[in-house]
Amino acid sequence: MPVKLSAPLAASLLPVRGVQLGFAQAHVRKPNRKDVLVIKLAEQSRVAGVFTNNRFCAAPVILCKEFLAQKAGIRALLVNTGCANAGTGEDGLNRAKQSCEVLGGLLGLNANQVLPFSTGVILEPLPVDKVIAGLPAAIENLKEDNWLNAAEAIMTTDIVAKGTSRSLMLDGKQVTITGISKGSGMIHPNMATMLGYIATDAAVSQCTLENIIQYAVNKSFNCITVDGDTSTNDSLILMATNLAGNTEITEQSADFVTLRDAMTAVAIELAQAIVRDGEGATKFMTIQVQAGKDEAECRKVAYAIAHSPLIKTAFFASDPNLGRILAAIGYAGVDDLDVNNMELYLGDVLVAEKGGRAVSYQEEQGAAIMKESDILVRVVLNRGSATSTVWTCDFSYDYVKINADYRS
Amino acid sequence: MPVKLSAPLAASLLPVRGVQLGFAQAHVRKPNRKDVLVIKLAEQSRVAGVFTNNRFCAAPVILCKEFLAQKAGIRALLVNTGCANAGTGEDGLNRAKQSCEVLGGLLGLNANQVLPFSTGVILEPLPVDKVIAGLPAAIENLKEDNWLNAAEAIMTTDIVAKGTSRSLMLDGKQVTITGISKGSGMIHPNMATMLGYIATDAAVSQCTLENIIQYAVNKSFNCITVDGDTSTNDSLILMATNLAGNTEITEQSADFVTLRDAMTAVAIELAQAIVRDGEGATKFMTIQVQAGKDEAECRKVAYAIAHSPLIKTAFFASDPNLGRILAAIGYAGVDDLDVNNMELYLGDVLVAEKGGRAVSYQEEQGAAIMKESDILVRVVLNRGSATSTVWTCDFSYDYVKINADYRS
Repeated sequence: MPVKLSAPLAASLLPVRGVQLGFAQAHVRKPNRKDVLVIKLAEQSRVAGVFTNNRFCAAPVILCKEFLAQKAGIRALLVNTGCANAGTGEDGLNRAKQSCEVLGGLLGLNANQVLPFSTGVILEPLPVDKVIAGLPAAIENLKEDNWLNAAEAIMTTDIVAKGTSRSLMLDGKQVTITGISKGSGMIHPNMATMLGYIATDAAVSQCTLENIIQYAVNKSFNCITVDGDTSTNDSLILMATNLAGNTEITEQSADFVTLRDAMTAVAIELAQAIVRDGEGATKFMTIQVQAGKDEAECRKVAYAIAHSPLIKTAFFASDPNLGRILAAIGYAGVDDLDVNNMELYLGDVLVAEKGGRAVSYQEEQGAAIMKESDILVRVVLNRGSATSTVWTCDFSYDYVKINADYRS
Repeated sequence: MPVKLSAPLAASLLPVRGVQLGFAQAHVRKPNRKDVLVIKLAEQSRVAGVFTNNRFCAAPVILCKEFLAQKAGIRALLVNTGCANAGTGEDGLNRAKQSCEVLGGLLGLNANQVLPFSTGVILEPLPVDKVIAGLPAAIENLKEDNWLNAAEAIMTTDIVAKGTSRSLMLDGKQVTITGISKGSGMIHPNMATMLGYIATDAAVSQCTLENIIQYAVNKSFNCITVDGDTSTNDSLILMATNLAGNTEITEQSADFVTLRDAMTAVAIELAQAIVRDGEGATKFMTIQVQAGKDEAECRKVAYAIAHSPLIKTAFFASDPNLGRILAAIGYAGVDDLDVNNMELYLGDVLVAEKGGRAVSYQEEQGAAIMKESDILVRVVLNRGSATSTVWTCDFSYDYVKINADYRS
């Protein structure tokens, strides 16, 4: 069950002027579920994206990058679940392109104004005819007040739909930000089978939007991990429709930081929701590594802890078997780490220092904290001022069950 | 259950002249189990060791390195299970040293002629009084024909004892090699909570023994992984008692390669046995990566596959969800990999080529191979002549169960 996470109320997801969403049940893999989403954007919208670093990136990721580079003015997004269209070679590219052509034709756009996204099973051909057959229905129900349906339409093994909104005043105008995300396994930085779509009606310059997405992704989706697997299809898209009436925001604007931080807060909430809904998750863990020489070594230590199956299963069992955390710190790859000069905290409790268990530590303290569903693990390296935070979840029977059964 | 692995028959583990083994039930953590092992070596024996790279290496590992460097002539080994004596700081070192002093006293040796080893829970003080109290019983039953008891005495979550022997003729003399190992979780190269002890009665020069151990460990224990965790306590020890009557072997000897390869074969069998008895394992997987630019990139790809929880759970389910393997190849970190110019084989079956599923591939072929308990995954990178092989196992409910319950 998701850790302290429930689906958003439809009313809590605020419409964004100029963003219409429509869905269809296209039977891509399974019947009776929303599996196709169309997002239509107003003219003059600006769009920025970041994508998986996986060398085996999926056909739609290749096309997204190509189309964004062509700067033809992105006006629509098309998402399908059930099939990732990854590991599908030239044929996969053709199918993805065909879906963009058909949706473009129906909306009066060129194919390169449509960004395609897929998530689901790898190495199987995209049933593009089914996707295409679903488009008229999706177009028919396009509306601005459709974010919850959209969040549901992109779910795969997710248990709950994920979405959030923010409303703020910029330049005297009310501006809305709404975002949705999906993903629950194969979650890792750079990135996850993670799809995220965040829209605002603010006017933002293209280059500023690209700046914001890099900043936001580094503070959010690039700080989460469920199982260390980096997907072929991860994509995060920021959209700005330019309809709020504010003066266009650039990096020099007084409101730049306000908008950037609000979009980043939405991205963090969506990213954490993915971890809270991690496959089989029963605990949400925040791994904070502090006082490192540089951020890179802090991240190494944080990810060594976050990826360790031994630590993740101990958290599942609420077992304060904290020596496993020391072991992970030790093999994280910080070659000159002095293990006798660092501290490990669980919540507020000092667990280890001077290379061993803290004299003050009582096992009951650890046991009490391990029973919580949100747990902070804090490592103080005492060798500098850098810091890094990673969010992850535990490893349960259900993780195995979900991933052993996923295709059936 | 272990994958095609059963405990060796006592008779199959050949005595090695000059190596006596004795055990005790010392109640280190649990009652009624052998948990202390003493190995006594003849005078003139030579000993070489390799140890974990974990920065948080355990107190006994620190002492082993120190004592080996002092070259006082190692004459005994002392192993306890139940407590790793890791993350125990200065106090842990003192307790380990005390155990060496007492055993040395009982055997007429200096403390630095005794190598200590511990395996078990991290971050808890070694109950050294219990270990010491067990020593007289262990010494009392010291004998050469005691390898199976020794293999049992070093088990923790292992289901079966692990040991093997080889007999060969060197220089007209019969030479015996016998080894035992333990370990089943936290298994990863460089190394694992893996203990391995391999003895021979051959006469070998010290420097040649050190050469052999490096060669053997790189072909064996450094090629296995269960869960990617590198332990604080991993140790592999080679012992040569010099009693077979052969002329001392050096790297120039005609018999050098024969001995080296026989010891390596023993090391490979012991290492693979650890994977076959991997916590919760139901499948044994050989990951072969071929035709890479260099061995390093082949290892990266092999380990990305071997560590992926998504792949390991799919193998547990006998589900040929092979796209997950492509995804792992893609994120392995080979930045200039051309995914359109490589092949993926499952057993003898070509699964993927040219960036997608092979035209000839039928899902039934994959399904048939996935039902086997020993499975070969072969990746051909087509960019060089280097190769690397890694052995691993699948990820099952029982892995979670064992590690969630380990301390209780």
